[in-house]
Amino acid sequence: MSGAPRKVGIVGASGYGGAELLRLCAGHPNLEVAVAQAGSAAGQHIAAHTPSLAAAYPDLAYGRADIDGLDGLDVVFLALPHGRSQSLVPGLVDRVGLVVDLAADYRLADPGAYPTWYGEAHTSPELLATFVYGLPELHRSELVGATRIAAPGCYPTAALLALAPLLEAGALDVPGAGGAPALVVDAASGTSGAGRAPTESLHFAAVDEDFVAYGLLDHRHTAEMEQGLGTTVLFTPHLAPMVRGILATCYARPADPRSLTTEDAMQLLRDRYDHEPFVVVADAPPSTKSASGSNTAHLSVRVDPRTGWVVVLSAIDNLIKGAAGQAVQCANLALGLPEVTGLPMAGVYP
Amino acid sequence: MSGAPRKVGIVGASGYGGAELLRLCAGHPNLEVAVAQAGSAAGQHIAAHTPSLAAAYPDLAYGRADIDGLDGLDVVFLALPHGRSQSLVPGLVDRVGLVVDLAADYRLADPGAYPTWYGEAHTSPELLATFVYGLPELHRSELVGATRIAAPGCYPTAALLALAPLLEAGALDVPGAGGAPALVVDAASGTSGAGRAPTESLHFAAVDEDFVAYGLLDHRHTAEMEQGLGTTVLFTPHLAPMVRGILATCYARPADPRSLTTEDAMQLLRDRYDHEPFVVVADAPPSTKSASGSNTAHLSVRVDPRTGWVVVLSAIDNLIKGAAGQAVQCANLALGLPEVTGLPMAGVYP
Amino acid sequence: MSGAPRKVGIVGASGYGGAELLRLCAGHPNLEVAVAQAGSAAGQHIAAHTPSLAAAYPDLAYGRADIDGLDGLDVVFLALPHGRSQSLVPGLVDRVGLVVDLAADYRLADPGAYPTWYGEAHTSPELLATFVYGLPELHRSELVGATRIAAPGCYPTAALLALAPLLEAGALDVPGAGGAPALVVDAASGTSGAGRAPTESLHFAAVDEDFVAYGLLDHRHTAEMEQGLGTTVLFTPHLAPMVRGILATCYARPADPRSLTTEDAMQLLRDRYDHEPFVVVADAPPSTKSASGSNTAHLSVRVDPRTGWVVVLSAIDNLIKGAAGQAVQCANLALGLPEVTGLPMAGVYP
Amino acid sequence: MSGAPRKVGIVGASGYGGAELLRLCAGHPNLEVAVAQAGSAAGQHIAAHTPSLAAAYPDLAYGRADIDGLDGLDVVFLALPHGRSQSLVPGLVDRVGLVVDLAADYRLADPGAYPTWYGEAHTSPELLATFVYGLPELHRSELVGATRIAAPGCYPTAALLALAPLLEAGALDVPGAGGAPALVVDAASGTSGAGRAPTESLHFAAVDEDFVAYGLLDHRHTAEMEQGLGTTVLFTPHLAPMVRGILATCYARPADPRSLTTEDAMQLLRDRYDHEPFVVVADAPPSTKSASGSNTAHLSVRVDPRTGWVVVLSAIDNLIKGAAGQAVQCANLALGLPEVTGLPMAGVYP
Repeated sequence: MSGAPRKVGIVGASGYGGAELLRLCAGHPNLEVAVAQAGSAAGQHIAAHTPSLAAAYPDLAYGRADIDGLDGLDVVFLALPHGRSQSLVPGLVDRVGLVVDLAADYRLADPGAYPTWYGEAHTSPELLATFVYGLPELHRSELVGATRIAAPGCYPTAALLALAPLLEAGALDVPGAGGAPALVVDAASGTSGAGRAPTESLHFAAVDEDFVAYGLLDHRHTAEMEQGLGTTVLFTPHLAPMVRGILATCYARPADPRSLTTEDAMQLLRDRYDHEPFVVVADAPPSTKSASGSNTAHLSVRVDPRTGWVVVLSAIDNLIKGAAGQAVQCANLALGLPEVTGLPMAGVYP
Repeated sequence: MSGAPRKVGIVGASGYGGAELLRLCAGHPNLEVAVAQAGSAAGQHIAAHTPSLAAAYPDLAYGRADIDGLDGLDVVFLALPHGRSQSLVPGLVDRVGLVVDLAADYRLADPGAYPTWYGEAHTSPELLATFVYGLPELHRSELVGATRIAAPGCYPTAALLALAPLLEAGALDVPGAGGAPALVVDAASGTSGAGRAPTESLHFAAVDEDFVAYGLLDHRHTAEMEQGLGTTVLFTPHLAPMVRGILATCYARPADPRSLTTEDAMQLLRDRYDHEPFVVVADAPPSTKSASGSNTAHLSVRVDPRTGWVVVLSAIDNLIKGAAGQAVQCANLALGLPEVTGLPMAGVYP
Repeated sequence: MSGAPRKVGIVGASGYGGAELLRLCAGHPNLEVAVAQAGSAAGQHIAAHTPSLAAAYPDLAYGRADIDGLDGLDVVFLALPHGRSQSLVPGLVDRVGLVVDLAADYRLADPGAYPTWYGEAHTSPELLATFVYGLPELHRSELVGATRIAAPGCYPTAALLALAPLLEAGALDVPGAGGAPALVVDAASGTSGAGRAPTESLHFAAVDEDFVAYGLLDHRHTAEMEQGLGTTVLFTPHLAPMVRGILATCYARPADPRSLTTEDAMQLLRDRYDHEPFVVVADAPPSTKSASGSNTAHLSVRVDPRTGWVVVLSAIDNLIKGAAGQAVQCANLALGLPEVTGLPMAGVYP
Repeated sequence: MSGAPRKVGIVGASGYGGAELLRLCAGHPNLEVAVAQAGSAAGQHIAAHTPSLAAAYPDLAYGRADIDGLDGLDVVFLALPHGRSQSLVPGLVDRVGLVVDLAADYRLADPGAYPTWYGEAHTSPELLATFVYGLPELHRSELVGATRIAAPGCYPTAALLALAPLLEAGALDVPGAGGAPALVVDAASGTSGAGRAPTESLHFAAVDEDFVAYGLLDHRHTAEMEQGLGTTVLFTPHLAPMVRGILATCYARPADPRSLTTEDAMQLLRDRYDHEPFVVVADAPPSTKSASGSNTAHLSVRVDPRTGWVVVLSAIDNLIKGAAGQAVQCANLALGLPEVTGLPMAGVYP
């Protein structure tokens, strides 16, 4: 049964996330793209619109956004800007086998968080509890056999993989538990996370040779990190002059500054991720380039007795482990396939 | 039988070509890396040396260069600088099932060409005729069942795929056939083609934001292009500020300037590559980014009646279709496996 | 008198060319920006719109496009897209001391060339003959005291500086003079030449790691090259993943292939540019990075007896020697100032 | 008197800092390079070694390292790796008018800090107190007429300009003053800060598309920041895939979290730097590209009542305000020239 191809639909197939889903499905032995819907690109051949996919999809054209065209599919991936999934999901979830939403629409369990962080109320709050948060390393058991999955944001994926094991183990101090300051997640991302639509700030000549912070104090992914970590986070994202990759440099206080060592913290990470196929824990600081092109997260940690800080570092490919790859990883689990099926473990280097 | 894994050895496994072979083999269902030999990196774990490979090769270490360690392997890929393969091949070819040499050592059939272009005589000229030139789109029948393959250079791969169909069809004028000038192949490459060893001219700060010609008039790949095309070529390579990719912009004179049109020339390319899994012929000019991360070549052509020039454009990923991917494609053919096995058709975009 | 500041107006001041004019004027002892007009940015402070200029222009705001606001200025630079200057120039030329147009509107002497290359008729053809083509190294005497100057395009600047000396000296064969093929100018440019307006093809994620040809066979700068060289040219521009810089690699046939040597051709260039402050002739192939940030052009040449080709290479910063710097160089000549005043001779390296 | 050219010597003239000093001196009306000493490049013409300088220095060659050759010069800039200045300075200071050391050798006042942070004792500790720390915005009065100047490190320049005004004003909490954690300075730099010598980690193919932390917990610039700020700092530098630029994102706790606002903190910065020619304080987050090519620092700040953090951002060009430009700014002050002489206020954008 696991060998039979599942019919897949991709909504938002002409964006960067959609292109990556198309690419991964082309190399996946059990997923077969039956429908690829797009907005303004509808009607165009994939091969002409995104030539990197021409050899894999020589004939398929993007279809129009049309929920009826998805009826009966085994899997539907939604790769849309925030807010758009909410308009589709209520009418879709009972007509297809599995929905994996790559947007933020069903990530936050608390309906009250949407007005605060996204500026408007959720339109189907009753469905929030039916979605599983799709971070396999932290929520695997819930994902097996799931039918509704909210794939995590790229920054939260990096931050949660870095910090959750140390928090779970009680190794970190958190606000309220002794006056510790909020965790700081300082991260840099390539531009592909901002999507395919052109803007002046994403112009090559503006980005190249530039490094700049944005979303100061109020980036929306903060809420997702705080939900996943159960504590307050100050999140500062930066745009780096590269296409792919996120590096999160996370600052926290040790619960016991007199005893926690770098070796202890490294061992906690190693033990936690020992059997994970897509997590590498190493002494050397992780680099985004090592993760690029793969579904693998790279982690390391340092404890500084001199200043009383713990620094946890995490690198991923934002479009793979931070988006399309993780969505496929979740789908594999939900469909009962081997979790690694069709997913690149090795990065494209250099 | 085709399902049984073949034991693979990689010599020169710590360079860029070696890393790409390791990556492709990790995703290939029939190739299993048994031995990965390196020079100065011998003894290091692959995972520590090249972290992009850590999840795929958590435990394997580079071995020392040692021909005995390759004995009995099904396939040996040689990914060494020019001149080094010659010292290994005579003692190796009868001890392993298949040798695929990624260097230039066995590409030129004429022993006399080596002193001219490489500055020294070939040390095993008697073996030259036993190697097949590994460009599947032009030499497929010779590659099926071959045991000794010389994988083409990156620039020649791009230039030959572009020009050979038009020359074969008699659409181009060549020197001697009417006083036409030598063909001009003007190409730009990413820096990965220059290898992993650091030099001042490959320093990030030197390359970034730079575009420069090199190897003027006498680049060694000229000989390989002239052998493959059967005519004289002026080749001007440039270094572009990118890691991967070659774009060849080829200039030739039409055999009959009054009648050849762009449509004719496009149709010649389309007909020639109609059933090729790894060649895309499209109206839009090919871009290196569309080819990046895939084994696919992208081609287009224009005929200019105003100036009497034909312009053929060809884009590949120099490390995949121009090196490791093509080597695996050749190995698939030689081993009787489906030609596309384990090779990416879709590029990593963006 | 030469010490008194000249009042300058810049029209199109919010684009890349305009920003470069503002920067150069800020460091110019004799030019003082009185008016900076812009389109959609009108009303914004320069410091907020383009922070790189904040320290030099802490208070100045862009004004609206308004020809009356330019009345009586000593110099007006027009940095507008093609076609827009034509609507301003007729009403402007008699109201200001000097007009330097950075667009293509007054570069071609033949009114009939505009419909062919720009798709529409020129609206003030009677003024074409009153403009001097602003390439000081080839037209210096006409520029001294000029009041109407058409600054050259970026690609033509690179190509004309490379080829004109060899053509003038009779060292090159040209069509009609023996059946030689048209000259080939193969060039790569950074993206800043395409302007500041965002498009999908100029998105960082689209350009980074990409090299692609565009404008095949019919790029508008072809006409300007042919006018300047007096012969037919096939021009193939490419977009390189960098912000600034043009490298032109020019292919021509020697007039006498039996006798012209690389040394001869180098000497012709050296002799021609011996006293030019902004031209460097060197043996090593010129690189765009060496020219970046300066008003200097870098040249070299090779003659290949094997194939019968001459290759001339030329590198400039497209926004300085190819646009704003050359415009200031022309203005210096027109105003009777030392030609090098306020212009960077050294590049910003690395 | 101020118009007479001062004779300048540059030691370490073939590195990136040396090239930038040569470039700035070429455009400086009062500084004239008489001697440019280098190590392995000694004997080469500057024009051939670093072609960006060819038009400005057509004839000058690098001299050998030779202290006697510097005798009697008005100004000597030392642009050497750490530790090398110590061997020159004792024999040099009394023979020339002004020494500006761009290395770390004379930055730390406490001789005991050298073994801790640099791994070896200082060889001329008695001279430490005779050097002025060359950050004009914080030490201007000491620099006027100074004869021995230690130009600050690139990271400390960014961090001190950001944090010093808020600390001076008592707006920040510091360790010991209430249990606050150490300040965190998280910074990203282009690769030029690592110097011109090639290494595998600075290879274009390694750096491009990569973002990675380095020097975790113990980077040497930490000591310089702590000296300048008078409190403990955790410093995490990152390497970004760009050539120039540093962005420091600094995290601190407000002294009074209930009352300090973003507006307050912005006003503190604005007041402090109101008359500074080379500091821009703006609401928008500063970007490295805005600073690139200029001697200008760009600053902004945010106070987050939700998490109790203050975030101060600072961008500079590491080779200009973080090295050569600041050295010239110091020399201007020391020599009694207008502070801005010969220094670019506007950045090279894009």
